[in-house]
Amino acid sequence: MKFCSNCAAPLQQRVPPGDNLPRFVCDACGEIHYQNPKLVVGVVAARDERILLCRRAIEPRYGYWTLPAGFMENDETAAQAALRETLEEAGARIEIEAPFSLISVPRVNQVHLFYRARLASLEFKPGEESLEVALVEEDKVPWQDIAFRTVALTLRHWFADRARGSFGFHAEDIALR
Amino acid sequence: MKFCSNCAAPLQQRVPPGDNLPRFVCDACGEIHYQNPKLVVGVVAARDERILLCRRAIEPRYGYWTLPAGFMENDETAAQAALRETLEEAGARIEIEAPFSLISVPRVNQVHLFYRARLASLEFKPGEESLEVALVEEDKVPWQDIAFRTVALTLRHWFADRARGSFGFHAEDIALR
Repeated sequence: MKFCSNCAAPLQQRVPPGDNLPRFVCDACGEIHYQNPKLVVGVVAARDERILLCRRAIEPRYGYWTLPAGFMENDETAAQAALRETLEEAGARIEIEAPFSLISVPRVNQVHLFYRARLASLEFKPGEESLEVALVEEDKVPWQDIAFRTVALTLRHWFADRARGSFGFHAEDIALR
Repeated sequence: MKFCSNCAAPLQQRVPPGDNLPRFVCDACGEIHYQNPKLVVGVVAARDERILLCRRAIEPRYGYWTLPAGFMENDETAAQAALRETLEEAGARIEIEAPFSLISVPRVNQVHLFYRARLASLEFKPGEESLEVALVEEDKVPWQDIAFRTVALTLRHWFADRARGSFGFHAEDIALR
């Protein structure tokens, strides 16, 4: 059972007129409560051949390594979300270069967007959501302990593009099954 | 006043522990109700030097011209959202080529993502949300009657890239003010 966030009445699930998917509908106030995917925004921040990784201090995937990333908030742009998450999780300042990867993850109703960036200084430190932060070279990346498939995919594209001498933009999906 | 969608209790607005922004918090069941931007996904579908435009049959911007686009749904990928919206609004089938533009619109808490695509056939017809659908050449684009700035920006990038003979990927923001 779900309730209306406007008037607290119980919600019904049905297809509204002119629509073709079932929605949570409030018969008391008329509001249709849509549910949409969330954007997770992160960054591959590089400096001197090394990239910035964080080890997670929170679930899911506590203890595993990830790129600085998190849910985009209201009232910010996607690039601002990348700057904010990098500061929060890694205590690091970056200069955004370009969007780098866009990966739909319909299983969890998320879209992951990673930017390329330059680490602006060698100052960094773990924030509340990180156990540690490290600048690692390609042969030190803990591939077996990467938290999320979108992060592993993004890192593989990044190192492949760097080896090729040219960074592209990579769009793909992690299929439902 | 907002209510908890899980238990119908009134929500409080405050900064949860470990967070730094006020959230809607339920003291009855403990749920934190985050609010995040939504993804709007659309397409520049081209065929024989012409692109597919729809005239809106709904608010906002009733009667203005737009690219096929709409809110991404749960349980789909971003590319699937582009295919679905094009079929719903323009009755048209497309072949997605590549992501083309990504524009944050923090004023309305949206991120707009447009793909490049090829219109698969010359069959199209207005869906419920369109008054008419047209295949237009560059000099016939109704620039004064385009519904949204993200659509106008995307169209300008598309025609500029086409003139240059090479399509890129364009990321930008429509600033808060």
